[in-house]
Amino acid sequence: MSALLESYAAGRWFRADDEGEPLPDAVTGAEVARLSSRGLDLRAMVGHARSVGGPALRELTFHQRAAMIKELAALLMAEKESFYALSARTGATRRDSAVDVDGGFGTLFSYASKGARELPNDTIALDGGVERLGRGGTFLGQHVYSSRPGVAVQINAFNFPVWGMLEKLAPAFLAGLPSIVKPASQTAYLTEAVVRRIIESGILPEGSLQLLCGSPRGLLDELGEQDFVGFTGSAHTAGILRDHPSVLHGGTRLGVEADSLNCSILGPDVTPEDPEFDLFVKAVVTEMTVKAGQKCTAIRRVLVPEGVSAAVLDALTARLAKVTVGNPANEDVRMGALASLGQRREVRKAVEALRASSEVVFGDPDRVAVLDADAERGAFLSPILLRASAGAVEPHDVEPFGPVSTVLTYSSVDEAVALAARGRGSLVGSLVTHDPRVARAVTIGLAPWHGRVLVLDRTCAEESTGHGSPLPVLVHGGPGRAGGGEELGGVRGVLNLMQRTAVQGSPDMLTAITGRWTPGSRRAVGDVHPFRKSLAELRIGDSIESAAREVTLADVEHFAEFTGDTFYAHTDPAAAAQNPLFGGIVAHGYLVVSLAAGLFVEPNPGPVLANFGVDGLRFLTPVRAGDTISVALTVKQITARTNADYGEVRWDAVVANQDGAPVATYDVLTLVAKTWPRAEG
Amino acid sequence: MSALLESYAAGRWFRADDEGEPLPDAVTGAEVARLSSRGLDLRAMVGHARSVGGPALRELTFHQRAAMIKELAALLMAEKESFYALSARTGATRRDSAVDVDGGFGTLFSYASKGARELPNDTIALDGGVERLGRGGTFLGQHVYSSRPGVAVQINAFNFPVWGMLEKLAPAFLAGLPSIVKPASQTAYLTEAVVRRIIESGILPEGSLQLLCGSPRGLLDELGEQDFVGFTGSAHTAGILRDHPSVLHGGTRLGVEADSLNCSILGPDVTPEDPEFDLFVKAVVTEMTVKAGQKCTAIRRVLVPEGVSAAVLDALTARLAKVTVGNPANEDVRMGALASLGQRREVRKAVEALRASSEVVFGDPDRVAVLDADAERGAFLSPILLRASAGAVEPHDVEPFGPVSTVLTYSSVDEAVALAARGRGSLVGSLVTHDPRVARAVTIGLAPWHGRVLVLDRTCAEESTGHGSPLPVLVHGGPGRAGGGEELGGVRGVLNLMQRTAVQGSPDMLTAITGRWTPGSRRAVGDVHPFRKSLAELRIGDSIESAAREVTLADVEHFAEFTGDTFYAHTDPAAAAQNPLFGGIVAHGYLVVSLAAGLFVEPNPGPVLANFGVDGLRFLTPVRAGDTISVALTVKQITARTNADYGEVRWDAVVANQDGAPVATYDVLTLVAKTWPRAEG
Repeated sequence: MSALLESYAAGRWFRADDEGEPLPDAVTGAEVARLSSRGLDLRAMVGHARSVGGPALRELTFHQRAAMIKELAALLMAEKESFYALSARTGATRRDSAVDVDGGFGTLFSYASKGARELPNDTIALDGGVERLGRGGTFLGQHVYSSRPGVAVQINAFNFPVWGMLEKLAPAFLAGLPSIVKPASQTAYLTEAVVRRIIESGILPEGSLQLLCGSPRGLLDELGEQDFVGFTGSAHTAGILRDHPSVLHGGTRLGVEADSLNCSILGPDVTPEDPEFDLFVKAVVTEMTVKAGQKCTAIRRVLVPEGVSAAVLDALTARLAKVTVGNPANEDVRMGALASLGQRREVRKAVEALRASSEVVFGDPDRVAVLDADAERGAFLSPILLRASAGAVEPHDVEPFGPVSTVLTYSSVDEAVALAARGRGSLVGSLVTHDPRVARAVTIGLAPWHGRVLVLDRTCAEESTGHGSPLPVLVHGGPGRAGGGEELGGVRGVLNLMQRTAVQGSPDMLTAITGRWTPGSRRAVGDVHPFRKSLAELRIGDSIESAAREVTLADVEHFAEFTGDTFYAHTDPAAAAQNPLFGGIVAHGYLVVSLAAGLFVEPNPGPVLANFGVDGLRFLTPVRAGDTISVALTVKQITARTNADYGEVRWDAVVANQDGAPVATYDVLTLVAKTWPRAEG
Repeated sequence: MSALLESYAAGRWFRADDEGEPLPDAVTGAEVARLSSRGLDLRAMVGHARSVGGPALRELTFHQRAAMIKELAALLMAEKESFYALSARTGATRRDSAVDVDGGFGTLFSYASKGARELPNDTIALDGGVERLGRGGTFLGQHVYSSRPGVAVQINAFNFPVWGMLEKLAPAFLAGLPSIVKPASQTAYLTEAVVRRIIESGILPEGSLQLLCGSPRGLLDELGEQDFVGFTGSAHTAGILRDHPSVLHGGTRLGVEADSLNCSILGPDVTPEDPEFDLFVKAVVTEMTVKAGQKCTAIRRVLVPEGVSAAVLDALTARLAKVTVGNPANEDVRMGALASLGQRREVRKAVEALRASSEVVFGDPDRVAVLDADAERGAFLSPILLRASAGAVEPHDVEPFGPVSTVLTYSSVDEAVALAARGRGSLVGSLVTHDPRVARAVTIGLAPWHGRVLVLDRTCAEESTGHGSPLPVLVHGGPGRAGGGEELGGVRGVLNLMQRTAVQGSPDMLTAITGRWTPGSRRAVGDVHPFRKSLAELRIGDSIESAAREVTLADVEHFAEFTGDTFYAHTDPAAAAQNPLFGGIVAHGYLVVSLAAGLFVEPNPGPVLANFGVDGLRFLTPVRAGDTISVALTVKQITARTNADYGEVRWDAVVANQDGAPVATYDVLTLVAKTWPRAEG
């Protein structure tokens, strides 16, 4: 008897007290492992996540969480080969395993990077700018994202035992939500192996990741209004989850990513001679055969212009004929097995249903030649291509979760879009075209029905990651049949798991709450120029109020001559007088900000290392010859970098004229050393 | 018999074929109108929205939709008095009516403004920046929001017949979704009056607004995966909607905003002598009495430090004693009637339930003195204040939807936050404090449980809009018991109703699809300097490739002297050599962008009127003495203003050195005339 998989629950590895159910190898039928969670205390798991994992996670800043994910990703990537052998037993070829294993670890890297670059080094994130809620500026609003004191239950599908776990874990971890991972039974042994390595590494805080190998029955009963269930799988199971009392009445949030009837459209502009024709054929065959078509993003519907459909069918058939099916461990094999014999039965049933309105043009659902494997014991299936008859209904409704696609024809771009929409919502649609007008029309038509749209042409083909690959930086999920959820998308996937709250109050209160200086807040003008303070000494609100400087006509004329910016509004009084916005000579905006820098800068070497940028510069009032300007510069945000000896300081800059009217407002971005030997006084 | 309310359905006013149910005046019990939708074809309404309203709306750009909303708001605001008389019959005082009527029209104004300023003059909106998906830059991703070809069904509560409709209608309209408005029966006559005026005005495209006065039974059966149901009301009804097959299995999206047990917390720092003490007492009484407490945002739980609870109770009682109840049309009346006798029965029942663990300290649920009205016929109720005993459960569970609040005490900030959380998710929580540390701790604690948190102190009190007021620019909705929805929040409320799609492709394809120039796309360098082209002539991708200019040491020294920016990295070779980022003298960033402007500007009067700002300026490579720089400036985005003779042009600017390395990248923002008399050649 093979080993019983264990669950990682409430800080220890749990072993069920029975023998468990066998999990067969997809290729040989031999037992890989056994599965049971009998005796596992699900309530204790949820309690552990709430009382141990959540608090530990929420104490960390986004950057600290990102650093942990990065460390974990590096560790796992270095050992990736150790997971390939188990992956092959799920029926995956080496290429399939790369999608799952490397893809999963790559997702961790991507989230580590996004978390460090696009989220603050804090425990809350701000959303949008300050909203002024009264004329006087004493009452403001700021949207804030905060971590929910809850649990993320992640119910994964069998097809991506590694990626499926990590693409949910990474955003949840960054969001401050502890995860309880429930892998699908069939391939749980691979998920368990990866989780074991993660737990062993000790990188993640205890309680932030738990693993449930076995039945989740009763788990949702434990959830409440701060909890989230992330589900990937069938629409049927999604419906059952939506109907659970915790979701219906208890405020538990549910995110669903369900299999969908994704399509790929060959543009009406493409002829068999165009490179796009081959790209299309190659993409369809790739999507049919990678993971033996067991991808929720696979192309189920192939939409082609009537005129080229015969050519497309010929090309697809020729290419499919070259696909070798068999033992995925054999290097000559292009397509491995389905995940189980049961899965194959399901796919055969779906093909039978499709045949009501489509004919099989390639492959035999009941027979396939296999290389280096036993066709009876392994869950092998031939790639199967069908051609739908006019008006066919089934291709838009029946989903064969295997290497099966159906070709349909269209006669106009509008019809292509309408056919795509008959899938009633998909994860992804693709369009192969080299015509930008076709791209715009079809993409805008597809967009409301899809979470992702790929436009493939000769220009991007080499770098394209393909129709079927969700990317960590792009949202994954789709409306309708695809479940209505939204995962990944970089920081979007993190914020989706957090609570957005509108905070209202006075400027000083908003500054205290958000940790970002809010216009109208107190400013601390001290004896020490803030450019002489290191990151350790600087405080939000530290400020400079500069001396004033007159901007003379000579300054403007000289600047025009020196820089070559001789725009008439700076050089030609008569023409400038005609300008509807200025009505006379005005100083260059760049002159104003240059002089402003001269007013606020501290020239000597100090902790401020560089000005690396400017954000949101707006010129509000023209500066005329003879006007006098001065600057107020205030520390707005301080972001220490986790792995550098400096950090970023964002300064609020307001240049005003002699009447106090704002002339220019902007943020100045500087790099400031974490410490600096004080030399003064 | 009073008039039968009509529905506006499929382009005409529909009158039921029966007598309908009477809708009584909340104050006198007299019949105001009758309600029935017998014979109304709901399927035809949904079909009309889909086939007429949706397509008409989606043809308009966001700016065009915003302009219609603005026109409508102005028209309604000018006639607002005409709705006050009907509003009084709902039990509303003049102040209550202002919240509903003026608040509703103000929401239209706010959305008109946000739509014009924060959304593009296009039919799709971009989300975030371009994601580079390959090293070569030939494969990119861009998130896009597009309008769903669906319907928004809006099921409103009885308490805000005008605002409740418009706060849902405005975002849906901007999002390109046609609305079917279903007002609550009790006060449907006021909604009907406003809709009648809107339809009469002819401002909105036919089919973009329909009205269902009567029963919505069967309406949800007509909905599918592109449709949205926005519901405001009880958690019970929300549960029924969540359980509908269209929501469970059909992909229909549901947004819920439910009554919640909102709390207000008096900070532990506040003594009875502080102005915050009075602000707190005033806020509680206001929330109890405005709309006779019939607000989903009203304060149901009053959390005060143990030490001051007696003083708070005294102050609340004294203030409540001055509240005059009676005919809302009478100017001396502070609080009107509940919306109906049935409503009063419900509230009395809730008070009875609360009494299990709380004692009434002000008011009598069965008796109230009324001014200028008949206490038997009108749905009058005294304000009722309760004090909870230690460990009371009911205040966190029972919601009296009327002028009823319960005082609870806490002994630490942590306990206050824990008590607030026992409401299991609320629309709004408020905190009255003058201590920034208390503000930070409590707000971060409340945030995951609330859609909005108000921090009130002496500084913002005068401008504060109060605990109970949702604002169009801030999100409205809350987790858990509050329903989990999110409305308003400015553009957030619009985008929530649209589909977000990740679009992948080559730079040229993304430019064609999004209408915004994508880095890496084709640039059109022509004979005519693009500064000489009007908005009508400019095209996305029009570009300048400037001449080169050497930046000499003399330039840097001169610029330092001229501007006063004598930072050591520009002036002191020895010190600059020590700088870890530069290692020697570098040119000022402001010098680089100033010289760049000199390189790309076209000096003569022309359609480019002004440079009004710069976005996202980043200095990427230091410029050293002797380096040569040049600029590529490309039209990135063109936004014609609806009501001005110019528009905004955003230019992509890349300054590169002699090696082609980017030195600075930024967006230049200009105002460009829509037309310009060509003078050249």
